[in-house]
Amino acid sequence: MTSNTNKEIVRIGLIQMACGEDTEANIKTAEQGIRQAAGQGAQIICLQELFQTPYFCQVENHDNFKLAEEIPGPSTQAMSQLASALGIVLIVPLFEKRSTGIYHNTAVVLDADGSIAGRYRKMHIPHDPGFYEKFYFTPGDTGFQTIPTRFGKIGVLICWDQWFPEAARLTALSGAQILFYPTAIGYQAFDESVAEKQVQAWQTIQKAHSIANGVFTVVVNRVGQEDQVNFWGKSFVSDPFGEVLVEASAKEPEVLVVDCDLGLIEETRQGWPFLRDRRVDAYQNLTRLFIDQNET
Amino acid sequence: MTSNTNKEIVRIGLIQMACGEDTEANIKTAEQGIRQAAGQGAQIICLQELFQTPYFCQVENHDNFKLAEEIPGPSTQAMSQLASALGIVLIVPLFEKRSTGIYHNTAVVLDADGSIAGRYRKMHIPHDPGFYEKFYFTPGDTGFQTIPTRFGKIGVLICWDQWFPEAARLTALSGAQILFYPTAIGYQAFDESVAEKQVQAWQTIQKAHSIANGVFTVVVNRVGQEDQVNFWGKSFVSDPFGEVLVEASAKEPEVLVVDCDLGLIEETRQGWPFLRDRRVDAYQNLTRLFIDQNET
Repeated sequence: MTSNTNKEIVRIGLIQMACGEDTEANIKTAEQGIRQAAGQGAQIICLQELFQTPYFCQVENHDNFKLAEEIPGPSTQAMSQLASALGIVLIVPLFEKRSTGIYHNTAVVLDADGSIAGRYRKMHIPHDPGFYEKFYFTPGDTGFQTIPTRFGKIGVLICWDQWFPEAARLTALSGAQILFYPTAIGYQAFDESVAEKQVQAWQTIQKAHSIANGVFTVVVNRVGQEDQVNFWGKSFVSDPFGEVLVEASAKEPEVLVVDCDLGLIEETRQGWPFLRDRRVDAYQNLTRLFIDQNET
Repeated sequence: MTSNTNKEIVRIGLIQMACGEDTEANIKTAEQGIRQAAGQGAQIICLQELFQTPYFCQVENHDNFKLAEEIPGPSTQAMSQLASALGIVLIVPLFEKRSTGIYHNTAVVLDADGSIAGRYRKMHIPHDPGFYEKFYFTPGDTGFQTIPTRFGKIGVLICWDQWFPEAARLTALSGAQILFYPTAIGYQAFDESVAEKQVQAWQTIQKAHSIANGVFTVVVNRVGQEDQVNFWGKSFVSDPFGEVLVEASAKEPEVLVVDCDLGLIEETRQGWPFLRDRRVDAYQNLTRLFIDQNET
């Protein structure tokens, strides 16, 4: 592998928070984190999934729909002003009210001039004990996309998307240099025995997205106990080789700032040229749920 | 996650070898390893990629085509007799001469009665310093498939296939419970500085195939210095959660035998039901090499 002679540094900020019931307080915490990261030179800053509230999907309660808001709306507007004032790109995950009866788990990307660069609506929706998201969120229809910003071409995916290599691949193939995963994942009291295995699997598969695609991966998770779920933090950044550049605490809120050299993407992809050798002539069945043996 | 009450144990054998110039000696070593693993109760035994010879793809030399043989042919026949005598399923990677001028990097799966259960022809072919495979091997046309055997439904992929989540996914979607990766991977003197990173990336992405698909992954690599390449061994088995059950030496030949509980597949896929939530309506572009931005 040749040494990298074309450095192209972008400084990334991750805001790992603990959320309480007071929405205004959560937003203030986020803003403080953003200002701290920007003060350290961060150019693209990512908040965690549904950063304004506790992770309300632990229960199925119609009252929670009032937490949703339109995009653009008050939160987008406030965050746009902040992005513009600080000259940063900001990834803002929101509970989106799209229309009467259609709600999404969404992330808005605000460019450094405060304009909306793009939005992503969570495509893969979980629904498991403590994570009842199919009750709230219509699966997204944005598809997997790259959003050009002042400081780089980025892709945004959200939490459960983490487990699907297809999502990372399609986003990278559309040009993204960095994959951002705002996240709310934790373990529950009843399965603490497998907690460490879950954390390892979660890190492994996201590092693998970096490796398979030759991109940076940025994961921003919440932290702290909320009702039945202990959110495990450990936000991290992986380089295109799958090496972890920085990792946050499993217990405490934390603001991480790290330099990513986008020049490494070309170097990595030349060294291990996986994208050269994909067998796109043989991948048609990826659009099937299962390939039944008596059909093949 | 519920505890697993439906155990379905299959015992797997991995034969990690160092190869010399003497083909007969390599085959004898393989046979000894197979007998050793079978003696320990292994039911499905996997040899490493191109186990009969040194890794000849370090150079582009037409003389090496004479190493290829037809399937069925002498090696298949000898190994069929061994599989039948021991009552084991055997995965035998061979340099296949398919026809005049068409050669493949192939793995034959022999069932426990000695019959040919199936064959896989390596779909993704590398071609990089020291690994000049596009010179020798026509990319396979078998596609990604599951081969039913007496002891389980298995998929075989070969080496470079390791880096492509599509290959693992399609094989798992066709019903495979275990993915086998016969392999010949190592590092070269000139990039020893990145050797450890390469090994980590290699382990990470294959553990991720287990996680994404809820299957066992079995990787059988060669070991030892051959010309410019130091093959790094470290053959391993990952469970459906991505946990490494057993791992071989980085320096020495080794026969590994390990029990895999196929009942864990159902348990894992119920606990983290990724296969439930794939967005097959949004994956069409996986059959494209790149998604150019001015087209979308």
